[in-house]
Amino acid sequence: MQKHISLDVIVAMEKQERVHLVNSLGGFKSVSLIGTVDHLGNENLGIFSSILHIGANPPLIAVVFRPSPPERDTLKNILETGFYTINHINENIYKQAHQTAARYDSSISEFDVTGLKSEYKNDFFAPFVQESSIQIGVQFKEKINITINDTVMVIGEINHIYYPENCLAKDGFLDIEKANTITCSGLDSYHKTLQLNRLSYAKPNREIVAIASDYKV
Amino acid sequence: MQKHISLDVIVAMEKQERVHLVNSLGGFKSVSLIGTVDHLGNENLGIFSSILHIGANPPLIAVVFRPSPPERDTLKNILETGFYTINHINENIYKQAHQTAARYDSSISEFDVTGLKSEYKNDFFAPFVQESSIQIGVQFKEKINITINDTVMVIGEINHIYYPENCLAKDGFLDIEKANTITCSGLDSYHKTLQLNRLSYAKPNREIVAIASDYKV
Repeated sequence: MQKHISLDVIVAMEKQERVHLVNSLGGFKSVSLIGTVDHLGNENLGIFSSILHIGANPPLIAVVFRPSPPERDTLKNILETGFYTINHINENIYKQAHQTAARYDSSISEFDVTGLKSEYKNDFFAPFVQESSIQIGVQFKEKINITINDTVMVIGEINHIYYPENCLAKDGFLDIEKANTITCSGLDSYHKTLQLNRLSYAKPNREIVAIASDYKV
Repeated sequence: MQKHISLDVIVAMEKQERVHLVNSLGGFKSVSLIGTVDHLGNENLGIFSSILHIGANPPLIAVVFRPSPPERDTLKNILETGFYTINHINENIYKQAHQTAARYDSSISEFDVTGLKSEYKNDFFAPFVQESSIQIGVQFKEKINITINDTVMVIGEINHIYYPENCLAKDGFLDIEKANTITCSGLDSYHKTLQLNRLSYAKPNREIVAIASDYKV
């Protein structure tokens, strides 16, 4: 049987119940670790599920920040240094990734606390997460204030992509399931995936068919 | 072995290859059907994978629109009427959902073409997708222009939530996997999910443990 909840009921809910519910409604989410370092060398690592593709040319990626800790260090470092990394999460590290959401003091590095290893390469300023199989180096481009609820969207340009061999298809599709990337829903639910199919490009009057990925070696 | 692609290689890629690659980088995405109707009664249905939770109080949800067809009808109807629906996609309808991305003429309803059924209820202006197990009625609140690549973010307030019984936990978590919601990656890859765990609220110096959902009946 179908159930129904209307706006007045949502608004009247106990705060944490409403947060769980509304967070679930957006569907499955991208979940990644964002790595930053300030100019004194203090590293920060935070988990974010508000990452969004917004364009391929230039290659842009967006993150929405709430105006609250613990995300403040990440945002501060991005604005101060201009660089950050987005690191996909896999089954081996999701508990450590979740732990980075705890409200640690700014002087504490979530790398140290969780045991995840920071990794610098290609002269990129921000630290990558070594245990992450897909790592993206991003340069800050624009900050957009979402005044309706005091959140901030940060848009960055993708400068570097690291990924495991045999996961990139010849047509450009990067098989993130094959790379063991996981997804999340709500505030705290983590999920592996099982591919149903890739589907052919949709055109009027043409049947959709499953397509196979032909991977580069 | 780890592979590496830098910005200059991304920029030099053939367009469609770049679109596939960059779309994959954002991780698993929410994928839903947005239903609208204009003031003449012409219905429109489109698939979107750029849906983002941005806040619970007020309950807000965002969608990013590219400045191109076939999404134009959806955006036009939202701005004209102020109302739209977001309908989660499940394994039974994902091929039909994907087909709505074809560039049909504005006079053609994607409901008619795909066989998905429109459904009106609770005096809400826009049509829901009957085959969708989680349906959300949304009222337009704000349009934000993302000038860096000429996209538009539309923010709406959640007015109605429809969901299957036994899927809502007592703490507010809506189990979208139990409701058969699927996820997507890249442009064309659809995935079922398999929950690893829900994890306890992260606090410094406290171990993360798995938590069980206690569902309302």
